[in-house]
Amino acid sequence: MKVEIITIGDEILIGQIVDTNAAWMARELTQYGFDIEAISSIGDQSDDIIRAIDIAFERAEILLLTGGVGPTNDDITKHTLCQYFHTALEMNDEVLQNIESIFIRRNLPLNQLSRKQAYVPVNCTVIQNKLGTAPILWFEKDEKVLVSMPGVPFEMKNAMQEEIIPRLQEKFKATDYLSRSFIVNDITESALATQLAEFELQLPKGFSLAYLPSLGYIRLRLSVWGEERKPEIKQQALKLKKLLGPNFVSKGEKMPEEILGDKLRKKNLTISTAESCTGGFISHKITVIPGSSDYYQGSIISYDSLIKEELLEVDKKTIESNGVVSREVVEQMALKVANKFHTDCSIAVSGIMGPDGGTKNQPVGTVWIATLHNSEIVAREYNVGRSRRENIERTANTAIFQLLKMLKS
Amino acid sequence: MKVEIITIGDEILIGQIVDTNAAWMARELTQYGFDIEAISSIGDQSDDIIRAIDIAFERAEILLLTGGVGPTNDDITKHTLCQYFHTALEMNDEVLQNIESIFIRRNLPLNQLSRKQAYVPVNCTVIQNKLGTAPILWFEKDEKVLVSMPGVPFEMKNAMQEEIIPRLQEKFKATDYLSRSFIVNDITESALATQLAEFELQLPKGFSLAYLPSLGYIRLRLSVWGEERKPEIKQQALKLKKLLGPNFVSKGEKMPEEILGDKLRKKNLTISTAESCTGGFISHKITVIPGSSDYYQGSIISYDSLIKEELLEVDKKTIESNGVVSREVVEQMALKVANKFHTDCSIAVSGIMGPDGGTKNQPVGTVWIATLHNSEIVAREYNVGRSRRENIERTANTAIFQLLKMLKS
Repeated sequence: MKVEIITIGDEILIGQIVDTNAAWMARELTQYGFDIEAISSIGDQSDDIIRAIDIAFERAEILLLTGGVGPTNDDITKHTLCQYFHTALEMNDEVLQNIESIFIRRNLPLNQLSRKQAYVPVNCTVIQNKLGTAPILWFEKDEKVLVSMPGVPFEMKNAMQEEIIPRLQEKFKATDYLSRSFIVNDITESALATQLAEFELQLPKGFSLAYLPSLGYIRLRLSVWGEERKPEIKQQALKLKKLLGPNFVSKGEKMPEEILGDKLRKKNLTISTAESCTGGFISHKITVIPGSSDYYQGSIISYDSLIKEELLEVDKKTIESNGVVSREVVEQMALKVANKFHTDCSIAVSGIMGPDGGTKNQPVGTVWIATLHNSEIVAREYNVGRSRRENIERTANTAIFQLLKMLKS
Repeated sequence: MKVEIITIGDEILIGQIVDTNAAWMARELTQYGFDIEAISSIGDQSDDIIRAIDIAFERAEILLLTGGVGPTNDDITKHTLCQYFHTALEMNDEVLQNIESIFIRRNLPLNQLSRKQAYVPVNCTVIQNKLGTAPILWFEKDEKVLVSMPGVPFEMKNAMQEEIIPRLQEKFKATDYLSRSFIVNDITESALATQLAEFELQLPKGFSLAYLPSLGYIRLRLSVWGEERKPEIKQQALKLKKLLGPNFVSKGEKMPEEILGDKLRKKNLTISTAESCTGGFISHKITVIPGSSDYYQGSIISYDSLIKEELLEVDKKTIESNGVVSREVVEQMALKVANKFHTDCSIAVSGIMGPDGGTKNQPVGTVWIATLHNSEIVAREYNVGRSRRENIERTANTAIFQLLKMLKS
């Protein structure tokens, strides 16, 4: 069943807000077997809204509109829908009661602007918005459905989960969407595609394989529509995993730092980091995961060489004879930090993130990563790229994967 | 001049990624006086892409496409554009050289799939992509322009800033968009709106004031279209700044960490951080700015209390009698870290980011921040909210502003 999402609001078109509603709706609907045909964002102009609805009804049976339903004058979605469906507004007592109860709960006097939100189009089903003052409007026309809902994310999400998705499932029989994801690293997208060319060719009809590159890794997603294809996707996923060989890191949709956290918790291990060029980003990635204090102990961020000597106690001679971006230095950093923080594992990085600081022998993007697990240390050199922000993120992910591979067994 | 942005990729329609490219492009283009008519997202299907282009050319003169230009089979934008513009592909030597140099830099062998990216449509202007292997394609048709560019954010941003926006400005005369921005903190959006209600009412016709809330601060943007309104916007901006009083932090579009960096460099000061609950995020924010090694020395991230005692040498009795989230502890952390890293300034934080760890007296969101400049220390308690990821970011920004206010004079 084809769906189009239309998000309404001038603030989207001037780039003032990132439209996260559409992505959330798309993910939810896909999981329930609906097929998103397109996502559009338009401004708060009546003509534009009507044109977008016309275009969307040509390619989809279900139109989901968010936004433009607030109490102020610039919100015109409701009036535009009256015009589109040739209907008028009437006062709805239930909606009014809902609005009144919200104002009482917030201990605020009800004003005229908010009272006006209780006027709803005559020819539609009104669904109560339990978390806000703008009601949800459900229109039907020639077996097609248009739903208008608020753009406030938590109101929209609640309405979708509690009311709209169940009603859509009842009205339209949706097909199941099946998918299997794999994280792969240490290979370029094109080399991976070459390696998987034959596999892609032999995939049964309806299957697709998407390459979703991130900084430092690629997520592969194998997918197909239809509950009845479960045995097939299982078989293809097994085949794919085998083909990935040593580049395979992990199954599923989790982020690298979540996978690392799960692994450390499962093995009852602790971790610390000694970061130079990543400036605390590895530590941040690890600690953004709720409950990371179970395994994460802390870090020393040594941007200055002197600090590497004083606080991390890296041997001055080692720095002088090998340079600060070297195997010897990151190995010492990994050892010392694990020692200081009394941890089982550690990650140490030193490199040149740019835009300045590169040399002929060590251009921008050169980075040494050491990972430690008990008495074992692995150290390796990488070249991560040229753009500072991306280099930092690619280095952090690469470091996490380097440790994950040590913990695999 | 009307623009439509089309983002291409199945991963957007299944909600796997949030389309941040469109918002970024919209914000940039608006600032240069272009008018975004609509944003659409569609999947990797040729028919859908062609239909979207047809629809978009009806309402806009400039079409900017991102995505679907990778080396793998699911990327079909280039072939679809050949079909749309009735042209064919040919090998482009300059593009091939660029691809080869990227592979050499990364020390990888060039494969056939990536080599194929050097084939470009005959009837278009090819713009080199300095950061990746997919070239930028610029088509013209009946005084309208279509540009296809990669969906990888940093490649797209670089191409937009360096090549596409300058070329669009040259080809289309855009009306000037004038704006003045102000960072404000330590006040809620509704309190600020109430405070500025009269100011908004007296604004001359055509002016608008946007509230752009971020975590820990609000950016206000006063704007109007038309070169001839420069004296007016200057006058209104002066009036606004006066009204903001002590909540005013800074003018302009810079991020908090950039403003801090500028200030430290100007005053020739150095900085270190001692982080507990923010887990390295303050350090990351500071070091993501190019050239931050001029003033940033390093950090100690002490997630565990024991580490606070051992590495930061915070007095054990101070922790026992005041608790780890307290004025006394963050003051000691700020002092010790500045001492260890020999810096003029420092930031220290300790708090409860959630979802667990809150108590009745110190609920989730409680955080103590100490900032130090030479011999002066300021310490203050905040409650930053309930959601972990947002709490970390809000705490980091709040800490940066707390130090910035000390350095103001």
